[in-house]
Amino acid sequence: MGDPAGVGPETIVGAWGNPSLHAACRAVVMGHPVVLQRAARLLGSSCEVVEVTAPDLIASDARTLPCFRCVAQSATEVEPASHDPAGGRAACDAVAFATRWALENQVDGITTAPLNKSSLAAAGYDCPGHTELLARLCGVSDVAMMLYLLPGGRVSGPGGLGVVHVTLHMALREIFPHLTPQAILSRARLADAVMREFLRDGAPARPPRIGVCALNPHAGEQGLFGDEELTCIRPAVERGVGEGLNLVGPLPADTLMGRAVAGEFDAVVAMYHDQGHIALKVVDMYRAVNITLGLPIVRTSVAHGTAFDLAWQGRAESAGMVTAVRTCALLARQRRPQHLHATPVSTT
Amino acid sequence: MGDPAGVGPETIVGAWGNPSLHAACRAVVMGHPVVLQRAARLLGSSCEVVEVTAPDLIASDARTLPCFRCVAQSATEVEPASHDPAGGRAACDAVAFATRWALENQVDGITTAPLNKSSLAAAGYDCPGHTELLARLCGVSDVAMMLYLLPGGRVSGPGGLGVVHVTLHMALREIFPHLTPQAILSRARLADAVMREFLRDGAPARPPRIGVCALNPHAGEQGLFGDEELTCIRPAVERGVGEGLNLVGPLPADTLMGRAVAGEFDAVVAMYHDQGHIALKVVDMYRAVNITLGLPIVRTSVAHGTAFDLAWQGRAESAGMVTAVRTCALLARQRRPQHLHATPVSTT
Repeated sequence: MGDPAGVGPETIVGAWGNPSLHAACRAVVMGHPVVLQRAARLLGSSCEVVEVTAPDLIASDARTLPCFRCVAQSATEVEPASHDPAGGRAACDAVAFATRWALENQVDGITTAPLNKSSLAAAGYDCPGHTELLARLCGVSDVAMMLYLLPGGRVSGPGGLGVVHVTLHMALREIFPHLTPQAILSRARLADAVMREFLRDGAPARPPRIGVCALNPHAGEQGLFGDEELTCIRPAVERGVGEGLNLVGPLPADTLMGRAVAGEFDAVVAMYHDQGHIALKVVDMYRAVNITLGLPIVRTSVAHGTAFDLAWQGRAESAGMVTAVRTCALLARQRRPQHLHATPVSTT
Repeated sequence: MGDPAGVGPETIVGAWGNPSLHAACRAVVMGHPVVLQRAARLLGSSCEVVEVTAPDLIASDARTLPCFRCVAQSATEVEPASHDPAGGRAACDAVAFATRWALENQVDGITTAPLNKSSLAAAGYDCPGHTELLARLCGVSDVAMMLYLLPGGRVSGPGGLGVVHVTLHMALREIFPHLTPQAILSRARLADAVMREFLRDGAPARPPRIGVCALNPHAGEQGLFGDEELTCIRPAVERGVGEGLNLVGPLPADTLMGRAVAGEFDAVVAMYHDQGHIALKVVDMYRAVNITLGLPIVRTSVAHGTAFDLAWQGRAESAGMVTAVRTCALLARQRRPQHLHATPVSTT
């Protein structure tokens, strides 16, 4: 459900009306039914919120929104667009519950709605965001964020296009010591693994083609504009190729991104947040999905935040939520085909 | 003509076959007729290269390519895709000649084909590229590079979309001391001036809307991921607004770029090379044009380099050259409407 003060609840209700969500999976919302009922009224949705006590007690469809109550009553008292500790706590509790269900195989994957970093901090959670919270809940450390677009539209590759980031939520000035061959290679391995799953659905399986971004303009022009390409990125690419990864780079980021969208690469390793995000958000502002790589569970997320500037006004775009749930279901099906449509994906 | 070893000559001949080029202006090529004849043979073009001794002696059309010989004979001996001082010298001489003609009002603007930085250096020219060479030839220092897309296709704004860069050809690690309020404001003023010209052709004139990129992810989240937004970019925006510029920012670069493409902004001020280039090259890899802002003459350029990997194989895309010449003619017409179609645009 995400933070009840943000756009999460209304994007969930909006997405529920989209048949492609229900064609992809059976879904259950982890949150509070009162908040979701309020969002349904806001949107004038005829969808009925039904409280359930287990993940698969009832079928979900465009008229029925099963909700598992896993957050405190205080979530229903959070004002729209407010930084409220109760909102941060509710978002966090829903994620924790959904993660436990996923680890116990009660659901095949989870999709998260946005939480608010400062509400999370106000609630006393020492976590900069979802990714770090999920890593802690799952007991892993080598995780990475992929921004992903499903195939179709301007994305020509059969497995869609994923961009994994070596550095993410830090000042641009701070990224340089984090760009090590080890970090780049770790992200390339994670990208390779997830893109193998996306490609399994399509044509004959082949190793994903992964382009690795240069850091500097024109890939540094042989050291003229910076040397990270020579000292760090190229060695990482060479080691990855030695391991059997289909890596190409470092390539100038401006043309690599265009080539990847056109289908020449299945995934891209970006050195910093905006290098990947600018390209995919220009291609499609609303359909980009976050995937956390390196977790033992499938987890996707919308790529936008709580958007307090338009929350609870009935104007939030729900296409991102639809795509995030569909992508979650697609990955879950690859990992556990025997579970296909047997257990639901939870939406928190 | 650019460096005769690169893709310049063949993109010129390719572009000559496009009627929209001739509908926009009368054009003359500054270079060497033998090199252009060779490119015409390579492409199997029926276009005749005719040597001229003044800019407007004959009309240009799809069958007639007027060429003014302004480079040494050695240009005809440069091997394809080779780093040859003679190639660097020829590219540089053609630019110098065209610039002189433009300063003397013998042509209304110039469009340049790519030169090669290392061939230029081998020829003894102490200039990192076209922009610096042109600034020196014109006796100015406050210049900036704009990457520009004409309206149409995915670009919704009536004046197209221009991105001006505060820093350009330098290592990412080096950009930080160059991001001063003065530098940002200077680029915003240059962007405002040129976008006023592009907008004059369209609907009722209005001040161009200019989005200013943040440097850090999420615009720094109020200082959480870097403080350049607070200490440097916001003060520049406030000063610009005080001067009457229609500036908005700093805005997170990933969503700003998508909003600008959708028509919400006419121009964007980017803090570094890839921030602007990734977005526009993803929107259209081949139609992006470089414009040098701050010169006393109109100058556009293709946005690609000499591309030695595909030069003289007859495979180079000439759409960029067509668009660069059309954009040059459009700007020239705004600046000197009385000269409309009276004097030619030169293509070097």
